[in-house]
Amino acid sequence: MTLSVNPAATAVSRSLVAGLQPWPGLIEAYRSYLPVSDQTPVVTLCEGNTPLIPMPVLAQHIGKDVKVWVKYDGLNPTGSFKDRGMTMAISKAKEAGAEAVICASTGNTSAAAAAYARRGGMRAFVLIPDGYVALGKLAQALLYGAEVLAINGNFDDALAMVQELAKDYPITLVNSVNPYRLEGQKTGAFEIVDAMGDAPDWLCIPVGNAGNITAYWMGFCEYHQQRKCSRLPRMMGFQAAGAAPLVNGHVVRDPQTLATAIRIGNPASWTKAEAVRDASQGEFNAVTDAEILDAYRLLALEGVFCEPASAASVAGLLKVKDQVPAGINIVCVLTGNGLKDPDTAIAHSNNQVKGGLNPDPDILAKAMGF
Amino acid sequence: MTLSVNPAATAVSRSLVAGLQPWPGLIEAYRSYLPVSDQTPVVTLCEGNTPLIPMPVLAQHIGKDVKVWVKYDGLNPTGSFKDRGMTMAISKAKEAGAEAVICASTGNTSAAAAAYARRGGMRAFVLIPDGYVALGKLAQALLYGAEVLAINGNFDDALAMVQELAKDYPITLVNSVNPYRLEGQKTGAFEIVDAMGDAPDWLCIPVGNAGNITAYWMGFCEYHQQRKCSRLPRMMGFQAAGAAPLVNGHVVRDPQTLATAIRIGNPASWTKAEAVRDASQGEFNAVTDAEILDAYRLLALEGVFCEPASAASVAGLLKVKDQVPAGINIVCVLTGNGLKDPDTAIAHSNNQVKGGLNPDPDILAKAMGF
Repeated sequence: MTLSVNPAATAVSRSLVAGLQPWPGLIEAYRSYLPVSDQTPVVTLCEGNTPLIPMPVLAQHIGKDVKVWVKYDGLNPTGSFKDRGMTMAISKAKEAGAEAVICASTGNTSAAAAAYARRGGMRAFVLIPDGYVALGKLAQALLYGAEVLAINGNFDDALAMVQELAKDYPITLVNSVNPYRLEGQKTGAFEIVDAMGDAPDWLCIPVGNAGNITAYWMGFCEYHQQRKCSRLPRMMGFQAAGAAPLVNGHVVRDPQTLATAIRIGNPASWTKAEAVRDASQGEFNAVTDAEILDAYRLLALEGVFCEPASAASVAGLLKVKDQVPAGINIVCVLTGNGLKDPDTAIAHSNNQVKGGLNPDPDILAKAMGF
Repeated sequence: MTLSVNPAATAVSRSLVAGLQPWPGLIEAYRSYLPVSDQTPVVTLCEGNTPLIPMPVLAQHIGKDVKVWVKYDGLNPTGSFKDRGMTMAISKAKEAGAEAVICASTGNTSAAAAAYARRGGMRAFVLIPDGYVALGKLAQALLYGAEVLAINGNFDDALAMVQELAKDYPITLVNSVNPYRLEGQKTGAFEIVDAMGDAPDWLCIPVGNAGNITAYWMGFCEYHQQRKCSRLPRMMGFQAAGAAPLVNGHVVRDPQTLATAIRIGNPASWTKAEAVRDASQGEFNAVTDAEILDAYRLLALEGVFCEPASAASVAGLLKVKDQVPAGINIVCVLTGNGLKDPDTAIAHSNNQVKGGLNPDPDILAKAMGF
């Protein structure tokens, strides 16, 4: 029998991977576009290859015969787009001989870092401010084997500490400053073009730290240079109104939004994101939490359950719908799985349980409107 | 520009789908194996195409040079294998002119039913026993737009009611008695063979209602008849010790296990599952909750976070490892995403947060063991 599946964590002859396996993970799928070599031990959970789901009902809300798809990156192995960057960052850390990786994060980054580091045989450290983070947010990272340290200080102190530790010890920093993260994330753009046969006219994307909008643009530009697509999309970035430094043009000291994954007041990729906006003739706009929740519910009613932060891309599209040219193709990026944030689902569903009904078919049919 | 993505919910010319889209959902991918026609409106969320992840560390626990993969069906759109059956059941319900679908379920079935029904433009009703079900379990279904009715009675009463209502009203029953569910679920076997180039030697799978083991066997047999694989696997079914009617040979009146997705005392596909066991020279065995949790943690430490019930397949493999022949290929089916059950992750991680550390690199490095 031919063995055809990428044996992942341990470095194994690539000849085993070729041919039959439909999806070996994004590094093998896009190897020629990524800074890896035959010496790079590929640490993968078969991330990427996430569905591009057509949303005809959402398109009707925009009107003008547009077509809308969502790139549902919540179906990555740890439930968010962070896996795209982390397979690269962890593979390169392992290649460099790191014994451990570290990040300051309370959310998707910590889960992805822990899953990939442990799969690659490394330790994973997560630094957080003590007394600030609910255990539920960390449960996934802890189960993946993260070692979580809570420090007396705030999140900025934690960020400063991970940078110090990465400088002085054999520990690789995998926060967003790690350059390989964006390299992995750009593959989202490749997948969209591979699925559609060209780039969309508009890409709508949530903007927090602004790394993902930067990475998607890198991906579209590289594919365009290789003539894999004939055009480049307008990059439409959307921030939460209470955490909108790129829209307001200044740092937000105390960012506030229920879309926790984009609750960032001073984005790491600020300058890059502005360059992307200008080069693509794109725009940044802000959406309120109420608008985010409306989009979140609308998406679920069409079958797609995402994190609140992800819904910012759709909330934004709805907000600027008067600007949308007729007949264009639009992709909205959904960065995380709705199951990551069950509390929001419980608190913000418009549906309720109808209780106390007697088990009689006629009574029930009447209650159901038949 | 060529439009190549399946526009899903609304019935659209199939010619749009052909060619470029890598994965149009399992009905289009396996159309010739499924009871659909050109008249069937395909309701899809691009389910299926889930990764087959190699697990070298798990394989080392078995030894004897075996190779082990997990079929991670938790990366379906609503987070479980139920989507495979539901795309079929809902498409056929729509074809038959149903205005609504109904099920009695508190878990993965209700979420999948709601997501697909609403995507197909139908209402989705879920019947539950009043006062028995925590709201968190229903949050996903409610957000997808399910109308949940709680009746004065137990789960058996709810099951009886949904059958009555489906008989007398234009409502299609999508509980496991719906025959199209198994048709969709059998595509999991197709994907495994397509990825590996042949069937595995062993398939390890959790058994609750016993529908999935039946469906996987159907899939392997159909592919074998079409010469897509040269062999058939031994079907190794694993039940939770407190809910193991197929192992014990009698109905369990009050099934108990933390693996709620397989907490079933009287499986709907009992007879079929016994036939699968006999035809495949397979076995049923029981695993304790402690063994399930050990496997759940072991999987997470290799990067895969599944529902507790899913881990029964791996717990079972570890339990019968002395029976495993040397050098064989084994696939364990993981039926649901670990994010479905955050409470278990919080309660049963072996890792804890280490708190109260001062923000000093040397203190932190020491705490980290450097």
